[in-house]
Amino acid sequence: MLLNPNMAATFPPPVMEARRWLEGVDFPADRPLINVSQAAPVDPPPAPLREAMAQFVLEDDGAHLYGPVLGLPELRAEVAKQWSQGYGGTVAPAQVAITSGCNQAFAAVIATLCAPGDEVILPTPWYFNHKMWLDMGGIAAVPLKTGDGLLPDAGAAEKLITSKTRAIALVSPNNPGGVEYPSETLSAFYELCGAKGIALIVDETYRDFDSRTGAPHDLFTRDSWDETLIQLYSFSKAYRLTGHRVGAVVASEARLAEAEKFLDTVAICPNQLGQRAALWGMQNLGNWLGTQRAEILARKAAIAKHFPRLEAKGWALEGNGAYFAYMRHPFDEPSDQLAQRMVREIGVLCLPGTMFVPDDDPSGAQALRIAFANIDADGISQLFDRLETL
Amino acid sequence: MLLNPNMAATFPPPVMEARRWLEGVDFPADRPLINVSQAAPVDPPPAPLREAMAQFVLEDDGAHLYGPVLGLPELRAEVAKQWSQGYGGTVAPAQVAITSGCNQAFAAVIATLCAPGDEVILPTPWYFNHKMWLDMGGIAAVPLKTGDGLLPDAGAAEKLITSKTRAIALVSPNNPGGVEYPSETLSAFYELCGAKGIALIVDETYRDFDSRTGAPHDLFTRDSWDETLIQLYSFSKAYRLTGHRVGAVVASEARLAEAEKFLDTVAICPNQLGQRAALWGMQNLGNWLGTQRAEILARKAAIAKHFPRLEAKGWALEGNGAYFAYMRHPFDEPSDQLAQRMVREIGVLCLPGTMFVPDDDPSGAQALRIAFANIDADGISQLFDRLETL
Repeated sequence: MLLNPNMAATFPPPVMEARRWLEGVDFPADRPLINVSQAAPVDPPPAPLREAMAQFVLEDDGAHLYGPVLGLPELRAEVAKQWSQGYGGTVAPAQVAITSGCNQAFAAVIATLCAPGDEVILPTPWYFNHKMWLDMGGIAAVPLKTGDGLLPDAGAAEKLITSKTRAIALVSPNNPGGVEYPSETLSAFYELCGAKGIALIVDETYRDFDSRTGAPHDLFTRDSWDETLIQLYSFSKAYRLTGHRVGAVVASEARLAEAEKFLDTVAICPNQLGQRAALWGMQNLGNWLGTQRAEILARKAAIAKHFPRLEAKGWALEGNGAYFAYMRHPFDEPSDQLAQRMVREIGVLCLPGTMFVPDDDPSGAQALRIAFANIDADGISQLFDRLETL
Repeated sequence: MLLNPNMAATFPPPVMEARRWLEGVDFPADRPLINVSQAAPVDPPPAPLREAMAQFVLEDDGAHLYGPVLGLPELRAEVAKQWSQGYGGTVAPAQVAITSGCNQAFAAVIATLCAPGDEVILPTPWYFNHKMWLDMGGIAAVPLKTGDGLLPDAGAAEKLITSKTRAIALVSPNNPGGVEYPSETLSAFYELCGAKGIALIVDETYRDFDSRTGAPHDLFTRDSWDETLIQLYSFSKAYRLTGHRVGAVVASEARLAEAEKFLDTVAICPNQLGQRAALWGMQNLGNWLGTQRAEILARKAAIAKHFPRLEAKGWALEGNGAYFAYMRHPFDEPSDQLAQRMVREIGVLCLPGTMFVPDDDPSGAQALRIAFANIDADGISQLFDRLETL
């Protein structure tokens, strides 16, 4: 078969691969599958948002027609307003573009920055879709090892910058690590990127579930922030709109004009109903989102509470936050085999650390990512019961 | 600004550029804008489909959650069934993938086929989003000139094939030309591509508005068709779902497994509500689609009926079908200037031929694309009244 070698070299989607591990496995009624593989709310949007969406479907013709490539103007304006307030900086509507999900936001931004042969620095463990997109574009993903606490160090990153480096991409709160990057860390990376004339991409998909109050960084308050900073966001988690594919890029107007070319050819426009739902959510679900955040933080606390049970058996909790716990297991078995055994023996589906690091990084074999947002405190307790039996 | 040179070399989205020509222009109440620039139904889906969608929003949790990257299994199965019946061939569900619109289908397929430096042959005038996608990937779009009747010739295409050619991409019925390719033309291209070991991509976005009855080609009846043929489809036009972004690729299961990598990183999954709407449409709107087709064919007939008024003034109708009339104008003024003057002087927005050909092809300066699906017979009559005054 005729095949782009860059595509052939890219690994298959991990979430889909893990889903295939379920095939042919029976899960008894008294021990149903605990699926902590994908970072997604398991529940649909709250009833008032569903009712608003049904009304758009029935009464708003525009919800069914093409719209501007860079998104619904009202949604771009609302993001600009809430961002300016929330981060204490200045974001204009023209600096906001809406995308069909946050993965597409990353893809579009990289397409504006990098030609084949260029390099992008990613802290490890990395978000695999970032790595995949770089691979298929012939762009080198340069791994930046993180140490204890999974925090990346700007000084270490500086040593990796070459004439081909176009960007450093951070995810905070982190997927898969669950770590909330301190403001100082983001500041150090911002200054490094500014000094080197490269872009700092900050993916804040899990921002709404940060355990800290107030703005997680002050980068939007910097003069000419848009010469360096590119922020990515997702409406999927906050308003449970995963199935509707709505994300955002916040960047310079000039970069968004380039991104528009990419978005036109891969999407024409973000879907219109999802954008209306995101706007309605931003304008009406502030309090509800607060309760959702509290629930996610309670789940994070449940992970921390139960973890000593595993610690006693040699496990370590490397990160715990956003939607994720990143755990080091004590077994000789590499995590990609362990994860498949977990499906069969204890009815737990999670992703192995091997999916989040380069092939030559041995740390992945010892790690598991638990996407705990999908299960409540009781489910988390059961999860630990099962992990203890491994 | 740091910029991917392949992106910098790509032109901006034509539909968005044309939309900017409207800025600052007043359209008097007795002569409102006639917008024939974009190929899109102006009306939303019919009421029964909107009601079904509202019910999905309210009652089907899955309509709001992530789904498989390659699409809703029931929709893939329905496409396979209807295609097998309609084309008299054999299409399996595993040979169907759902995408976020047909542009994304093309992007995904090219990503599986071509590395930077490869070549794809496109008949001219071409669909600009195809050209843009190739440009931004560093892939050469090799123009294949069409002659009278805008039909491409497989013999002429053969002379353009080099060791770097990976595919020939056809659009039938054609955008922008409005031409329905004869079955023999598609057959000749299929045989050429098969013999040369390259892919034949056939974009059938406008298939449901073909004026001919029966299958437009027999390619799906060929043995091992999926070694050569890749078909693209859109649900946007048939069921008026433009704003929901649902398209399809029909190809080999092995190629779809590669496309899955691309689709995962740029979309995660097609939006779930749009897929449910497309499935409902396929299962319930067969008769309604027949009346829509009849209406589009009536508009095509109205173009043909009125055209002699322009012919008398030196115009020529090069193609008329699907959603488009492709016209040669008699003025010395290049079409990109003429199109902007038309906005100001006669309140008509259409796309100039320059947007559909390489810069060095003079035919574009003489051509205009009229996307007539947007206006009824009365609107078409008014359009000709205005064009006569130019």
